Amino acid sequence: MNDQLKKSALDYHEFPSPGKLGIAITKPFETAAQLSLAYTPGVAEPVREIQADPENAYRYTAKGNLVAVISNGTAVLGLGDCGALAGKPVMEGKAVLFKKFADIDVFDIEVDAKEPKDFIDTVARIAPTFGGINLEDIAAPSCFEIEEKLIERCDIPVFHDDQHGTAIVLCAGLLNALELVGKKIEDARIVCLGAGAAGIASMRLAVDLGARRENMLLVDRKGVIHRDREDFSSLNKEKLEFASAAAAERRSLAGALAGADVFIGVSGPGLMKPEWLMLMAEKPVIFALSNPDPEIRPEDALAVRKDLIMATGRSDYPNQVNNVLCFPFLFRGALDVRARYINAAMKTAAVRAIAALAREPVPQEVLAAYGQKSLSFGPDYIIPKPLDPRLRDRVAPAVARAAVSSGAARLPYPAHYPA
Amino acid sequence: MNDQLKKSALDYHEFPSPGKLGIAITKPFETAAQLSLAYTPGVAEPVREIQADPENAYRYTAKGNLVAVISNGTAVLGLGDCGALAGKPVMEGKAVLFKKFADIDVFDIEVDAKEPKDFIDTVARIAPTFGGINLEDIAAPSCFEIEEKLIERCDIPVFHDDQHGTAIVLCAGLLNALELVGKKIEDARIVCLGAGAAGIASMRLAVDLGARRENMLLVDRKGVIHRDREDFSSLNKEKLEFASAAAAERRSLAGALAGADVFIGVSGPGLMKPEWLMLMAEKPVIFALSNPDPEIRPEDALAVRKDLIMATGRSDYPNQVNNVLCFPFLFRGALDVRARYINAAMKTAAVRAIAALAREPVPQEVLAAYGQKSLSFGPDYIIPKPLDPRLRDRVAPAVARAAVSSGAARLPYPAHYPA
Repeated sequence: MNDQLKKSALDYHEFPSPGKLGIAITKPFETAAQLSLAYTPGVAEPVREIQADPENAYRYTAKGNLVAVISNGTAVLGLGDCGALAGKPVMEGKAVLFKKFADIDVFDIEVDAKEPKDFIDTVARIAPTFGGINLEDIAAPSCFEIEEKLIERCDIPVFHDDQHGTAIVLCAGLLNALELVGKKIEDARIVCLGAGAAGIASMRLAVDLGARRENMLLVDRKGVIHRDREDFSSLNKEKLEFASAAAAERRSLAGALAGADVFIGVSGPGLMKPEWLMLMAEKPVIFALSNPDPEIRPEDALAVRKDLIMATGRSDYPNQVNNVLCFPFLFRGALDVRARYINAAMKTAAVRAIAALAREPVPQEVLAAYGQKSLSFGPDYIIPKPLDPRLRDRVAPAVARAAVSSGAARLPYPAHYPA
Repeated sequence: MNDQLKKSALDYHEFPSPGKLGIAITKPFETAAQLSLAYTPGVAEPVREIQADPENAYRYTAKGNLVAVISNGTAVLGLGDCGALAGKPVMEGKAVLFKKFADIDVFDIEVDAKEPKDFIDTVARIAPTFGGINLEDIAAPSCFEIEEKLIERCDIPVFHDDQHGTAIVLCAGLLNALELVGKKIEDARIVCLGAGAAGIASMRLAVDLGARRENMLLVDRKGVIHRDREDFSSLNKEKLEFASAAAAERRSLAGALAGADVFIGVSGPGLMKPEWLMLMAEKPVIFALSNPDPEIRPEDALAVRKDLIMATGRSDYPNQVNNVLCFPFLFRGALDVRARYINAAMKTAAVRAIAALAREPVPQEVLAAYGQKSLSFGPDYIIPKPLDPRLRDRVAPAVARAAVSSGAARLPYPAHYPA
């Protein structure tokens, strides 16, 4: 970021009032009579109704459209462990995105608790407040345990966006890229550099979509995760899930990339060397998602070979993998059918809905928003744009439908959704 | 409540959308450029600034104007232990009052934790999110320990409104009533029936205002709290604080009331018998705050003797003790000088500001809001009306000034406040 952008960002947050969100009263509240409905004595009635049946909270309070964006600040953006409070601008930003894109109300909650147990207890105890929980910017591997245990303890959807939001948008792009290069995900050899939240979740979701574990190699700082590694016994269970029987010559990143169809980078800047691209199979697919500086820059990659399809996390290159394509609409769909949880069927439905949208013609208003003359399905457009208003109409219904058919929903498919 | 009011209250909460509050985006957020300021990459700048100095959270996030209204639902209105979730309409109502009266943003948080330790840990861990914490509807005696420990653990104001909000408004009325009957608080003999949150806090605040412990009798279900009581060793420390050396004949409620100047009822409906009023001193002051049914109804009290001044918790009688006269403005003042805590100086300043306002002429708009032809300081008007717009201009500055002069404030007295 240049100094001008830094100043603009600080000014934006500071003036005319600090922060980015506030509370709105959604009911008439002017007269003494209205006060007596909203507060004592009238408010006693909804209290009694909820006491009689907790489901009535969805009828008489904001719970059903209210999501908590919760972080302990241990992995804020690319900045690492910033502490709970310093993550607040990010969580408020997330709240703004939820509201803007899906009309979901969000309380951002910054939790001063790094120990998973403390964090889990805290979130589980405040969960009655909300209709859903979006976990955010929590360091791996704690994030896996935290999400698992909270899913068990809460009767509302719990979703760690750094895992699944990234995985869903990435996999949507992956399906489209593989189609463009005429490969099947079942046959694709996939190398993932980075075994944190996004890496593990992306590999898991790719498996849900048909990728085969024997075709996948997960790589961390020490190389490919394989069964003969010295530190094998100390690896976390998420890494072990993808431990391979890779032969000795395939245990370095370069060795792993030999003949690979897909590279997923969710690691750090510059970790993918241009010369390694030459080792990959024909028409390779490259996701270089480290932000703001990718594992390899598109111009450097294209200088080496032209037959690749490339995506990054940046808005100034084609094919941005941006979680905002998913989380507002996935929660919209989940809330609208009152899902108990977010399951694999709902995630893969989101993947396919996002992927399908990129294959449709792009409306003029989207082109205008990005100052583009044209955009059409191809190597430079495998993922829809974040400001595409059709996302809500496609992703939310797909997620709701999957929730209903998979048994996650407590309500039927909404009448106001497309049939 | 009659059936029509019940239905109106439920409809009010349910339609057109459930609940009473939502989120508002406070910054321009339409273009891709604005998105990049509010979220990545721009949002990294305020994160770094807050990491460098936590005070910057007040500059770049909503924290400084954001209060948590937090309850575990153990003492909801007069309904008792309803559970965390069932309290949500009340907490949302409180949020609406904060916003409407003092433009303070509130997240209502319902905490599923009855054990004080669990509740305290939870609230302390989410405290970084907020600029202040309003505890609500938590049963006594847990509420005392919870508030004390949270004040210790948090560097933001923590205020249990059922204790201090009630105490402040009650004491404002008490000071005015005593002035009208020509008595001094130092000499007043005070009997308080009810040794829960409101009773203890009111007695403590009365002491801060000059009342003398030897003139005060605290009464619970078992009678006056005195040193010879059988259950003395099992009484909580808050009750012990007001344990008296009352003689045997003064250990019943009727005995305690003999010659008393003030009766404070924060107990239950009908517990004050009309005939006991005859035992009290000349021109007695009666606070019958049990809601919706007071300890004694004003018409029943006035049928027995005419020389009394009476206040209740109800809006359909004169002199309503309503916490909304205090909490929005007390927090407004505390937030505006970034107070670390709410101390006795700030509470007594609020008492005196509220009391003083009732002695001023009432503007036409307030009369109109209540359909009254006139209101002037006297036995039927010892407490201002909740919809009086002058409250904010009087109470918030008084609290802010007291915070500054007592050393609780981190900022100077605000320039935009009256000098």
